[in-house]
Amino acid sequence: MIDPPSLVDQYCHGVLRTELGLGTFEAQLARTEGPPAPGTTLFDTQTGFAVRRWCPPLLGLEPHCPPARYLARRRELGVLEAGRRLLRGSGITAYLVDTGLPGDLTGPDELGRAADAEAHEIVRLEQLAEQVADTSGTVEPFLANLAESVHGAAAHVAAFTSVAGPRHGPVLTAEPPGPGEVRGAAGRWLAARHAGDQLSDPVLLRHLLWIAVASGRPLQLHAGLGEPGARIDAGDPVLLTDFVRATAGLGTDLVLLHGYPYHRHAAHLAGVFPHVYTDCGAALVRTGARAATVLAEILELAPFGKILFSSGARGLPELHVVGACLFREALARVLGTWVAEGAWSLDDAQRVAGLIAAGNAGRVYGLE
Amino acid sequence: MIDPPSLVDQYCHGVLRTELGLGTFEAQLARTEGPPAPGTTLFDTQTGFAVRRWCPPLLGLEPHCPPARYLARRRELGVLEAGRRLLRGSGITAYLVDTGLPGDLTGPDELGRAADAEAHEIVRLEQLAEQVADTSGTVEPFLANLAESVHGAAAHVAAFTSVAGPRHGPVLTAEPPGPGEVRGAAGRWLAARHAGDQLSDPVLLRHLLWIAVASGRPLQLHAGLGEPGARIDAGDPVLLTDFVRATAGLGTDLVLLHGYPYHRHAAHLAGVFPHVYTDCGAALVRTGARAATVLAEILELAPFGKILFSSGARGLPELHVVGACLFREALARVLGTWVAEGAWSLDDAQRVAGLIAAGNAGRVYGLE
Amino acid sequence: MIDPPSLVDQYCHGVLRTELGLGTFEAQLARTEGPPAPGTTLFDTQTGFAVRRWCPPLLGLEPHCPPARYLARRRELGVLEAGRRLLRGSGITAYLVDTGLPGDLTGPDELGRAADAEAHEIVRLEQLAEQVADTSGTVEPFLANLAESVHGAAAHVAAFTSVAGPRHGPVLTAEPPGPGEVRGAAGRWLAARHAGDQLSDPVLLRHLLWIAVASGRPLQLHAGLGEPGARIDAGDPVLLTDFVRATAGLGTDLVLLHGYPYHRHAAHLAGVFPHVYTDCGAALVRTGARAATVLAEILELAPFGKILFSSGARGLPELHVVGACLFREALARVLGTWVAEGAWSLDDAQRVAGLIAAGNAGRVYGLE
Repeated sequence: MIDPPSLVDQYCHGVLRTELGLGTFEAQLARTEGPPAPGTTLFDTQTGFAVRRWCPPLLGLEPHCPPARYLARRRELGVLEAGRRLLRGSGITAYLVDTGLPGDLTGPDELGRAADAEAHEIVRLEQLAEQVADTSGTVEPFLANLAESVHGAAAHVAAFTSVAGPRHGPVLTAEPPGPGEVRGAAGRWLAARHAGDQLSDPVLLRHLLWIAVASGRPLQLHAGLGEPGARIDAGDPVLLTDFVRATAGLGTDLVLLHGYPYHRHAAHLAGVFPHVYTDCGAALVRTGARAATVLAEILELAPFGKILFSSGARGLPELHVVGACLFREALARVLGTWVAEGAWSLDDAQRVAGLIAAGNAGRVYGLE
Repeated sequence: MIDPPSLVDQYCHGVLRTELGLGTFEAQLARTEGPPAPGTTLFDTQTGFAVRRWCPPLLGLEPHCPPARYLARRRELGVLEAGRRLLRGSGITAYLVDTGLPGDLTGPDELGRAADAEAHEIVRLEQLAEQVADTSGTVEPFLANLAESVHGAAAHVAAFTSVAGPRHGPVLTAEPPGPGEVRGAAGRWLAARHAGDQLSDPVLLRHLLWIAVASGRPLQLHAGLGEPGARIDAGDPVLLTDFVRATAGLGTDLVLLHGYPYHRHAAHLAGVFPHVYTDCGAALVRTGARAATVLAEILELAPFGKILFSSGARGLPELHVVGACLFREALARVLGTWVAEGAWSLDDAQRVAGLIAAGNAGRVYGLE
Repeated sequence: MIDPPSLVDQYCHGVLRTELGLGTFEAQLARTEGPPAPGTTLFDTQTGFAVRRWCPPLLGLEPHCPPARYLARRRELGVLEAGRRLLRGSGITAYLVDTGLPGDLTGPDELGRAADAEAHEIVRLEQLAEQVADTSGTVEPFLANLAESVHGAAAHVAAFTSVAGPRHGPVLTAEPPGPGEVRGAAGRWLAARHAGDQLSDPVLLRHLLWIAVASGRPLQLHAGLGEPGARIDAGDPVLLTDFVRATAGLGTDLVLLHGYPYHRHAAHLAGVFPHVYTDCGAALVRTGARAATVLAEILELAPFGKILFSSGARGLPELHVVGACLFREALARVLGTWVAEGAWSLDDAQRVAGLIAAGNAGRVYGLE
């Protein structure tokens, strides 16, 4: 009864082009510091179980078949054909793809063709700044090229994204840095850096985010679970409150990605600030059989016009599948229960499902 | 099976006396910084859906009818008659009313008459201090009048309340400020203030709260979701721990209001400290179809003799209705499930339901 | 369908040897600062209701019978016989017993005999250091004896444990203190202390924990709800992140105890770091009828090979019973629901249940 016809994945990455063995596949199921503990496997996680539930049938196998059997079938089909079957089986009709990760991942066009779906680019601000630094010798050209690159990208990308929140929480302050401060920081960073170095200078990150805000394109801010290297509370979206308040009314939307385990805080910000939106997808891929509850927790405070689906998938097309299947099932269960209890009308539930699955993303990113 | 006969709303405000249109009504459904985002409406929230579920039948309409139709019917009846029908349909038998908000809101007597229910006053400490400042010229009379006003009010009010926690978290320290410190702060504040200015001086707030503790009346402390202007973690009740410990054994009860999304922390404090109680109402109005889960989370750590119902309603009688209906339904569902599972006996469940709905409030506030 | 055959309680204490009256029994049901509030009782808590549900049948009474009747029956049987019936009715097949609490509690051997089960010792590091200080006059012998005691104990104990996290959060830093710093702190502490004084010096605690890490035995770190005296957020496991990262790869496992209400954070650390495990028991005893939900929240991020059952029981054999019964019921309900929904296969659910109940503990602690 509640099954939205289209599904926009508002944040994901491309998929690996290489054939994977059991170990290399397993390593993509979670973000860890080090290999699984002796006697354990990352297949024994919610993500692992969700992959085993939803993906084998798309390749002609029984749900929950053993990992080794699944991997054998995947290799038999070949990475391209398996990817095509999985992506086309996900039901996702449009992908927004963050192209800022290293590794041999497909870009938006290639992902879109494999999936037979629309695909749009999300530009990662840190990577864009690093590319500009690689080609700009000194401070003045660097800063000029940086501004030009962001504004140039704004004309064709779906959104910008940044991981500065969880990595450098206090960076996102209420005011942009002054021009002298920016020039000083740029000079020090350019002098010290080697090609390929990541941008971690807080002044430059702050400057970069404020340039992006001025561009008018939606800005996706990572929050909650992120890279394993961070202390998880650095990703608490409440740390973004001052930045959020300072950017209100400027015409640029902020989208808080992921959020879990601080998703109730992200939902709160989406409720209080007109220009703030919250994601409800990547957390589902991590929590598997608990997806309905996590989605319901987001639906407590976030207005229904402010919630956007994503898979957050990276590397494996299985994760796009799991993101989409868990979301659709969780949405049907949560809203269906509320309809059955009389709390919501069926019409409202179907309308809200359509908003979260695709309508809100269409409006925010200006998709046709 | 589980339906307590009386219901004490231990914290709410009055209702607006003016007729409301679609936009002015919608603005009362949430506390936001700015109007709804383009393409969205605050009716598309848990609170909006809960109002549309519970209120139309009290005015002779179908549940979930469109907002415009509901508002038309409301205007047809007139704000007074609609308010009477709603309040009398809520099932609330006694209201404790915080009179410290600005705006044209009904006071306890008028609310009680409209609702055909008991009503008692809660005095907001900050507002009381501002009124005393408006009529006291210099430091010594101000401080003397302040103490006299608090102790005078203690003789007839149900409780005191303060929003100092979420607004000025670190204010609530383990010790009252010294007399010299208080005189200095009062002098500076009185000299700088204009009539109508809000009290935000941390020393005076601290002084005020300790005077209230000395009065012996229950003191309600706001926590969790509050004014949109605050950073939400400023309302985490763990920040009150030192103040709570310092006030133990003085004979004054502390009631933590709201709490969400830190309601598990509030429940913990109610479990550890004999004089601490926790609210379980306002959070339900904000979370709507999720009310049963939020109530259940409070019921994890809080002893059942330490939990008090409230609606937290403000401005719209619809919010009193929604607070009462969501609470009763959530209570019946949560406790009923535990009885069905064998975890609780039916006798215990009915007894606990009566405590949370009215019995605990009767004991704490000394209602007959 | 899901009922693991053996159950290892990886963290508990002994039971009281004295007969208890209604008041002394009630006082063991929660950790509070002060007696119950007037008009309330600690039997009206999730723990109290869980005891009344599960324990009376083991002594031949009806579930949910009044506390006075239960206590009368308990005294009729005598504390020894009642304890035997309760412990043998719990289904726990092996106990790991923290012997570091004061009071007349049974040790591992006596508990094991009463329960007809295996029992192993957990040594509390703070208490061990205090014992060494009682018998070592000056700095050099104290430090030498301390290292020797820890390494000596490591040969025969199941694990070490420490409450330094919730009591002295920032103590657990990324580096051990230097030798000069340790000698200075030891000198000051030894000079000032009286026999029986607790160890609270942060440098010595840090030193002690790093010695324990070097021993190779699993190290259990308290987190979340702990002693009532602590501010609850001092027990947030995210505060352990630097210590956790610094101890990765050294060959010693860390087990985060309790965790609630920060159990999602503990589960996250268990997911990211190969040498980190998380407990899923003591929180269930505190949350009673909500045990299934709390367990499910732990199962969101923690890999299934990284979760260990415990009762956390202390003083009353009733708490061992409640810990075991709530866990088994919650596990069957949570995993059973996921099997019924098709999210997990029955084979996987049974295998994971066995891991959490006993298999993971067997592997981590080297039980046969």
